[in-house]
Amino acid sequence: MTGKPRIAVVLSGCGVYDGAEIHEAVLTLLALDRRGASYQCFAPDIPQAHVINHLTGQESHESRNVLVESARIARGDVKPLRDYDPAAFDGIVFPGGFGAAKNLSSFAFDGPNCTVNPDVEKAIKGTRAAGKPIGALCISPAIMAKVLGGVELTIGSDSGTAATLEKLGARHKTAGHGEVVVDKAAKLVTTPCYMLNSTIGQIATGADNVVAAMLELTTR
Amino acid sequence: MTGKPRIAVVLSGCGVYDGAEIHEAVLTLLALDRRGASYQCFAPDIPQAHVINHLTGQESHESRNVLVESARIARGDVKPLRDYDPAAFDGIVFPGGFGAAKNLSSFAFDGPNCTVNPDVEKAIKGTRAAGKPIGALCISPAIMAKVLGGVELTIGSDSGTAATLEKLGARHKTAGHGEVVVDKAAKLVTTPCYMLNSTIGQIATGADNVVAAMLELTTR
Repeated sequence: MTGKPRIAVVLSGCGVYDGAEIHEAVLTLLALDRRGASYQCFAPDIPQAHVINHLTGQESHESRNVLVESARIARGDVKPLRDYDPAAFDGIVFPGGFGAAKNLSSFAFDGPNCTVNPDVEKAIKGTRAAGKPIGALCISPAIMAKVLGGVELTIGSDSGTAATLEKLGARHKTAGHGEVVVDKAAKLVTTPCYMLNSTIGQIATGADNVVAAMLELTTR
Repeated sequence: MTGKPRIAVVLSGCGVYDGAEIHEAVLTLLALDRRGASYQCFAPDIPQAHVINHLTGQESHESRNVLVESARIARGDVKPLRDYDPAAFDGIVFPGGFGAAKNLSSFAFDGPNCTVNPDVEKAIKGTRAAGKPIGALCISPAIMAKVLGGVELTIGSDSGTAATLEKLGARHKTAGHGEVVVDKAAKLVTTPCYMLNSTIGQIATGADNVVAAMLELTTR
């Protein structure tokens, strides 16, 4: 490939409690643009696990689609994740939010016994097999523990979640605001973001550090 | 007041085609945090004018509330705009998106004959009367033209929209990516953002320049 590095961004809806965390998603796109990469957003074409009223925190009795809601963050330019081809990209990154643990996987409901959406699993395994970097913010590293097993990663400093990921074979490292953990062998880059009580500026720093580390791991 | 400058951010939903433009909203919050200001999000507690499927661009036959959807961008921390008190803030800023022209006003439907939501009008007039700065991104300056009349502003370079704002008594100045127009007498700061075909990095620059100019115009 020639030209800019091209990174896939996997969204999981639009809103922290039932979809992609919006700040993490937007600031990942910003980091990619500022560091000279181009991006394409993807999301699975599936119903959301549920819809949460973000004002009250209560479940709202309606139905929304993950791909359709992700299009709000992507300004319409989002593709079904089943169309993702690792050969056409230099890496893939997963912003966080409960959507990663409710729509991309069932980690929020089932913990270590969670299932992972087949398109998500295929995308991660295909990228890993192609030797390309994978980024994961916030709670998204839980999906990597489930799919990739014995990788080094961080979800910040929450000991309960860390212990669950270690049950799945992962090696958890505590990390602070903006810090990244890089598993060089697996080319996996993770950062806590809103798994810590953070300012939006700290989220921007974390997203930027993930993108910088991913771009260093690209093979071209 | 002591401590950090405190800025109100008025959201209009969550998604460019029927609410607040998400990148502009998030990058305004980022700019405020990075420049040492604190913020509080507000939105009117009203039904959206309509709901647009952002994947297809078609109207979706459902009903959503502007305050509830704005809570997605604000991670739950958003207040009804009727509770905004200019005395408690150092300024107010309006990100863009069609929500500004469909929910905060009817500019997208009615052009120069548009109406403005009463809470929005009161917030703008109250801030102006208090001599505090007002920021407006993208299409939001149209609301300022309607409410404030003879102010200097920009919506970028679209001659049709500019002519409409001049009919409302505004003086339009063409502006490019990231550029701001400052009406020092009215303490009004505007920038085109996605009224121009922009990268997300250019949106971040525009939002940051608006915030910087607003903070220079604060009185403390």
